Amino acid sequence: MNYQVAIIGGGPAGYTAAEAAGKAGLSTIIFEKQNLGGVCLNEGCIPTKTLLYSAKTYDSAQQASKYAVNVPEVTFDLPKIIARKAKVVRKLVLGVKSKLATNQVMIVSGEATIIDKNTIRCGEETYTCENLIICTGSEAAIPPIPGVDKVTYWTHREALDNKELPESLVIIGGGVIGMEFASFFNSLGTEVTVIEMLDEILSGMDKELSAMLRADYAKKGVKFLVSTQVTSLEETEAGVTVYYKNADGVGNITGKKLLLSAGRRPVAKGFGLKNLNLELTERGCVVVNEQMQTSVPGVYVCGDLTGFSLLAHTAVREAEVAVHTILGKGDSMSYRAIPGVIYSNPEFAGVGETEETLPLKGISYTVNKLPMAYSGRFVAENEGVNGICKILLGKDETILGVHVLGNPASEIITIASMAVELQMKTEEWKRIVFPHPTVGEIFRETL
Amino acid sequence: MNYQVAIIGGGPAGYTAAEAAGKAGLSTIIFEKQNLGGVCLNEGCIPTKTLLYSAKTYDSAQQASKYAVNVPEVTFDLPKIIARKAKVVRKLVLGVKSKLATNQVMIVSGEATIIDKNTIRCGEETYTCENLIICTGSEAAIPPIPGVDKVTYWTHREALDNKELPESLVIIGGGVIGMEFASFFNSLGTEVTVIEMLDEILSGMDKELSAMLRADYAKKGVKFLVSTQVTSLEETEAGVTVYYKNADGVGNITGKKLLLSAGRRPVAKGFGLKNLNLELTERGCVVVNEQMQTSVPGVYVCGDLTGFSLLAHTAVREAEVAVHTILGKGDSMSYRAIPGVIYSNPEFAGVGETEETLPLKGISYTVNKLPMAYSGRFVAENEGVNGICKILLGKDETILGVHVLGNPASEIITIASMAVELQMKTEEWKRIVFPHPTVGEIFRETL
Repeated sequence: MNYQVAIIGGGPAGYTAAEAAGKAGLSTIIFEKQNLGGVCLNEGCIPTKTLLYSAKTYDSAQQASKYAVNVPEVTFDLPKIIARKAKVVRKLVLGVKSKLATNQVMIVSGEATIIDKNTIRCGEETYTCENLIICTGSEAAIPPIPGVDKVTYWTHREALDNKELPESLVIIGGGVIGMEFASFFNSLGTEVTVIEMLDEILSGMDKELSAMLRADYAKKGVKFLVSTQVTSLEETEAGVTVYYKNADGVGNITGKKLLLSAGRRPVAKGFGLKNLNLELTERGCVVVNEQMQTSVPGVYVCGDLTGFSLLAHTAVREAEVAVHTILGKGDSMSYRAIPGVIYSNPEFAGVGETEETLPLKGISYTVNKLPMAYSGRFVAENEGVNGICKILLGKDETILGVHVLGNPASEIITIASMAVELQMKTEEWKRIVFPHPTVGEIFRETL
Repeated sequence: MNYQVAIIGGGPAGYTAAEAAGKAGLSTIIFEKQNLGGVCLNEGCIPTKTLLYSAKTYDSAQQASKYAVNVPEVTFDLPKIIARKAKVVRKLVLGVKSKLATNQVMIVSGEATIIDKNTIRCGEETYTCENLIICTGSEAAIPPIPGVDKVTYWTHREALDNKELPESLVIIGGGVIGMEFASFFNSLGTEVTVIEMLDEILSGMDKELSAMLRADYAKKGVKFLVSTQVTSLEETEAGVTVYYKNADGVGNITGKKLLLSAGRRPVAKGFGLKNLNLELTERGCVVVNEQMQTSVPGVYVCGDLTGFSLLAHTAVREAEVAVHTILGKGDSMSYRAIPGVIYSNPEFAGVGETEETLPLKGISYTVNKLPMAYSGRFVAENEGVNGICKILLGKDETILGVHVLGNPASEIITIASMAVELQMKTEEWKRIVFPHPTVGEIFRETL
């Protein structure tokens, strides 16, 4: 069979591209070797948020007295939390399938191999295509720590399916994934230690707010070791012992369980990518232009394999751009306003430039910063909780970056994404009427 | 003393104008006869949201098992809920005071009387000013129902300070205020009846979604009588009996308490407004242009007294426009994207045109509508809860109106406000990268 568009990988990039291409009337085929929805839907964004919402419900019940509601006793049922997660994932995977079916997309379950840019083999079948969109995503990178091959460890996958609460957990890697699991297990009562190689958790996010979030979790009992290098791992009767070194010397810590969340690497092997002879970056990602076109005409790459941001929402937008390009619609990818979100409690989100990136680019800026308590609704709904909104302005008052620590940062950051992407100036953004009272008003206040 | 700007009324319009004028270096005086913050902060937006958050905490604890969290027992303490509300209000009033002080605004407590456009008397003192901004707001309108003068009733003010849960409550008026109190008392276990004269609650909001919210609350036990006219009121031993008539004939219902929330009217008397001889509308509001200027040069009116929307956020923006006009900065008020929010649970919000306003204006449009379950995060956080997102598009795909039923509609509606105010088209809005997974993504999905 010949298709106008063939897509390899059914994660956010792949299913978005398939839906968009199908909707536009292009004959479309998508190959997925595991589950539609990819890492994001099956073992990433969605399942973590489902677990975190149970943890938040548990936190809220414990803190209910702050709002004059009495909850004398609260417990949780971890196997049920995990079962609900599985149910949510199943429902959403069915939703993706149904959207693809509605748009006449052919779904093939199996490992696809690229023979050439117009030919794909999967099992016994060979398919031909006019355009090829590669969306193979990324996988957990296992750091080459001495002993890693001799100890039992979790990646995000095992952590998501674990039905027995560990007494203690050591997390190697204080990025988004590490911090979301730290938040979840800390809420449920596990003794959590986070070890981060860099001098602050959440690399890439605003450093000052990251430090505040770290301080917040330290108060809640999470132990942090930053600027700390893990030197070796050893399995003992008590669990897994992690040996490390930092400025204070050497040390070790033992956890019942160990979670490795020390980064992800693009999936560039196992499906014949090399047969295309695409131009690659030094780190093994595929080079693409703003239309998501690779060095080979008719071949597009979207999502983590481009190495840009490893975020589902970037992948979604890239997929739309690729399909628009195939359709001859003028569109191009902009990375100016890719929001980053940590679904901790409180949530932390940012978009655009940071105080770390601007000096590197030689761009001068001013900082407007305000406690979240300047929002009346934040005060009404966050008893005894602090937070910060930080806005970075260019010389001409253009909104360059916005960073928020405080609920619901994940949802209101999109307001800021629009301001950053549209390169709005202070006065223009202030002309927007924000409903009162909302937490989002903090942006207007901070400006 | 002579001031460059004098402001009458310390609600959202007044304190925003005062802060903006003071910040710009204008000598500024503000008169407030009761409490800084006005109705909004002292007995409106903020206190209701504080109460509603306690109710939401109570609801969430009761529903915790949906998320595998067990809360065998949950109770609430109404006097403590009311006390916390008072604390939140005090904190925010202090915040307003401190912002005004920071900006060198002179605050006068007392009833001001306008002598002429440059002269104000308050107590024994007379003040002169170059510019006058009138922000006297609005007050609860007591409908002239036979018997209203002989029964005990609550307005929003008494409802907010009531420390004993009534067994039953009849609410006359199913607008925003009526529905927010219906939501609060229904959550706490009061038997609530809402009587609405029009054929649907929440006049001005999307009618289809209003009906869905009504159906939702009907399931939770709230009784609704729409298209129903109250004919008389009578106090009895059992409480207050409300007599009504509708298409089914006549009837009556008795509640332990009665809440009147049948609208608000501008405060246009008691402070010498007539001495200015301003041009008024038929309904007694002051006529203003897009710069908030009245028919008398140097006199501005902002907030509810203009009669436009009776919303704090409209007032805030109008106040900014008035001060910018005084400062000679080109600015003008736009009413294209004034969001409306009902802080029910689930929340309901809308911005821009509705399916009710567009036909009246003769504008043709198309409707895109999607269940909220198309957002993965909504599914993760809303077990067994439905919702709808509706987007109204003009012929050229311009975003004309956006309406959302589902949490957190209040916070994400601002994303839509920006699209409506900026008159974005579908393709432009879709170019914005929305963080995944968020409820806000429902807009991209619906487009």
